[in-house]
Amino acid sequence: MRAVTLHGPRSIEVSDVPDPSIVEPTDVIVKVALSCICGSDLWPYRGVHEVGSAQRIGHEFVGTVVEVGSAVGSLRPGDFVISPFSWSDGTCPACRDGVTTGCRNGGFWGQPGSDGGQGEFVRVPFADATLVALPEPPPRELWPALLTLSDVMATGHHAAVCAHVAPGGTVGVVGDGAVGLCGILAARRLGAGQVIALSRNPARQAVAQQFGASDVVPERGRDAVAAVRELTGGRGVDHVLECVGTQESLETAIHIARRGGSVGFVGVPHLTDPKPISDLFARSVGLRGGGAWVRTYLPELLSDVMAGSLDPSAVFDLTLPLEEAAEGYRAMDERRAIKVLLELDSSA
Amino acid sequence: MRAVTLHGPRSIEVSDVPDPSIVEPTDVIVKVALSCICGSDLWPYRGVHEVGSAQRIGHEFVGTVVEVGSAVGSLRPGDFVISPFSWSDGTCPACRDGVTTGCRNGGFWGQPGSDGGQGEFVRVPFADATLVALPEPPPRELWPALLTLSDVMATGHHAAVCAHVAPGGTVGVVGDGAVGLCGILAARRLGAGQVIALSRNPARQAVAQQFGASDVVPERGRDAVAAVRELTGGRGVDHVLECVGTQESLETAIHIARRGGSVGFVGVPHLTDPKPISDLFARSVGLRGGGAWVRTYLPELLSDVMAGSLDPSAVFDLTLPLEEAAEGYRAMDERRAIKVLLELDSSA
Repeated sequence: MRAVTLHGPRSIEVSDVPDPSIVEPTDVIVKVALSCICGSDLWPYRGVHEVGSAQRIGHEFVGTVVEVGSAVGSLRPGDFVISPFSWSDGTCPACRDGVTTGCRNGGFWGQPGSDGGQGEFVRVPFADATLVALPEPPPRELWPALLTLSDVMATGHHAAVCAHVAPGGTVGVVGDGAVGLCGILAARRLGAGQVIALSRNPARQAVAQQFGASDVVPERGRDAVAAVRELTGGRGVDHVLECVGTQESLETAIHIARRGGSVGFVGVPHLTDPKPISDLFARSVGLRGGGAWVRTYLPELLSDVMAGSLDPSAVFDLTLPLEEAAEGYRAMDERRAIKVLLELDSSA
Repeated sequence: MRAVTLHGPRSIEVSDVPDPSIVEPTDVIVKVALSCICGSDLWPYRGVHEVGSAQRIGHEFVGTVVEVGSAVGSLRPGDFVISPFSWSDGTCPACRDGVTTGCRNGGFWGQPGSDGGQGEFVRVPFADATLVALPEPPPRELWPALLTLSDVMATGHHAAVCAHVAPGGTVGVVGDGAVGLCGILAARRLGAGQVIALSRNPARQAVAQQFGASDVVPERGRDAVAAVRELTGGRGVDHVLECVGTQESLETAIHIARRGGSVGFVGVPHLTDPKPISDLFARSVGLRGGGAWVRTYLPELLSDVMAGSLDPSAVFDLTLPLEEAAEGYRAMDERRAIKVLLELDSSA
C-alpha cells in the first residue's frame, strides 16, 4: 500500500509500506477514502518534534471497513466510518468519564507501531469503541465535512466546551487555522453572542466571517488585547478559545478574557515561561483543554452535519491526490492553504 | 493608634502610627476587635516580597464601625462588621460579575497608602460595598469563626468552588495551612464524598480529620501522587484544592487529579517552570483560582456560621495581644502555630 512518510525536517514522501492486517481480535482494517493534513503535522514536519526513520504521519481519516477481527461486534465490512485522531478502549476510567484522549490503552495515529491516517489502509485498535459508523454510506459531497469531525471541528468544539461557551456569551478566538475557524462555528452552535476572531489573513478572515465571527481583529499581542477590550466596552470576553499553543497566543488569550472568564486551550502548548499561570491567578481566569475528546463528541456533531445544520468543510481550500502530499505540506507550511484534503479512493 | 509594622526580613514591630480619618465620603473607620496573621503575610516577612519602610501589614479583621463618611448608606456607628481581605467598589464590571478581587478600584489592606488589618483602626474605602455588617453584635465566642470569613474560610471555599466540588465527588487538598484546612470544611459543605488531605504534621492532621478529611496522606511529590491514586482505585480525585502555590505543590495537585478533573488554586503561584501548563493539557485537567471573591461568598458563609453549621475557628491555635505580634509571626514562621489570633479590643 501507499502511505505518506516523514524522513526528516520538510522531507515528505509517499512510499510503499506493508499492508496492515488484523493483530488483535478487536481490530478492524479501514480502507481510507479521504484524509487530510493538520496544523499539528507541521510540528514534526518542521523538525520541532524529533521523528523516526520513514515515520508514518496523519491522524484524520474517513473510509470503509474492509476486514474485522473476531471480537468486533458493531462493525461490518462495507461500513463507512469516521475515526477520531486517537483510539481508545471505551472501558477504562478515563473513557467512562468521556476523556477518551486519556484512555489508558489509547494512542495516536502515526505514533511508532501504528498506521498513519495519510495512507491507503489503517489498522484500528479497539474498533468498536474507537470508530463511529454511519447507518449507510453518506453522499460524496458530505465527506469533507465528516472528515473535519476526525479532529478540527471536534477540537474547535472542545475549545468552546472547555471555555464554557454558553448562550449569549461573548467569545474571542485566538488562532485562525482550521481549528480556530471551527471554534467559531462551535461557539455559534453553542449560542454565543459576539464572536471576535483574531486573524490578519484575508482568506481566513473571510472564512471566519462565513462561520459567524461578528468582529475580526488583525492585531496581535498587546494591540490585540487593546482591540478586544475596545470591542467589549473595556470588559474583555467571557470565553476564549486558544487554538495556537505558543507563549504569546496563550498570554493574549488570558488577557482578552474578562476577569473571571474562561480560556479553552487546544493548541499543544510550547511554552518557555510560567507567567501565564500567574496571569490566570491575577485575573481569576480559568483554563481547561487538551486533546479533544473526539469520540465523545462525534455522535452529536455527526447528527448536525447529517441534518445540514453544521458544515465546516470550508476549512479545506486545497485538494490533492495522496501522491502529491508533499505539495500539500509545503502549501500549509507556507500558509498558502488553510487545510489540505488528500483524496485516496473516490469510489468508496 | 498602635499597629503592626514590617521593617525588613523577620523584623516585625508594633508601632505608633497616625489614626486614620475619613478621606472619601464613601469611607468608614472601623475599630478592630480581632485580627490575625495569615500564611501570605509570611511572604513579605521572609523577605520574598520587597517591603517599604515601616510597612503596614495584615488583611483580616472584624470590628465595630466608629465613623461613617457622608455618602455611606448602609452602615452606622456601632455596627459589627466583617471585612474581606480586599476592598471593592461593588459597581465595576468585575464586581457585577462577583469577581470582587478584580475590582478596577479595589485594593488590598497593607498596600502602600492603606491601613493594615493588624492595627487598632482601619479606614475602609467603598465601605457599603466592601463590609458586611451583622444585624446585631455577635457573641464574643463567635468572633474567631467570623474572622475566618475575612480570608481563610472564604479562600478555602473559593478553592472548592473553582475545583467544581459537587455532591459525591472525591477531593484532594494540597496544603495543610489554615486555607487548606478550611478547604476541607468547604468541600464537605459542598457535599464532597472522600476527602484526602495531604499533611505530615500531627497537629494539622488532627484538625484535618476534625474538619472532615476521610484520609490523610503524609507523603509529598511523586509519593503523594502514588498514595492518592492508591486510595482512589488508580483513578485520582475529581477535584483538587491547591492551597500552597509552589512549583511542587501545583504539579502534585495536577497529578493527583483524575483525567478530566479540576484544580482550584488559591496559593499565590511562585513558579519557575511552565511544565504545569503542559501537564494540564496532557491530563485534560482544568485550573481556576486566584484571590478569593470573599465579598461575594460572605453572606452565605456568614449565614452558616450564625446557624452553627460551619465553625472553622479550630484553625486558630495561638492567641496573643496585638503588642505580641512579633511572637505570633515567629510561631507561624517556625510552623509552631497554624494561625495566630491577635486580640485588640475584647470589650467591643
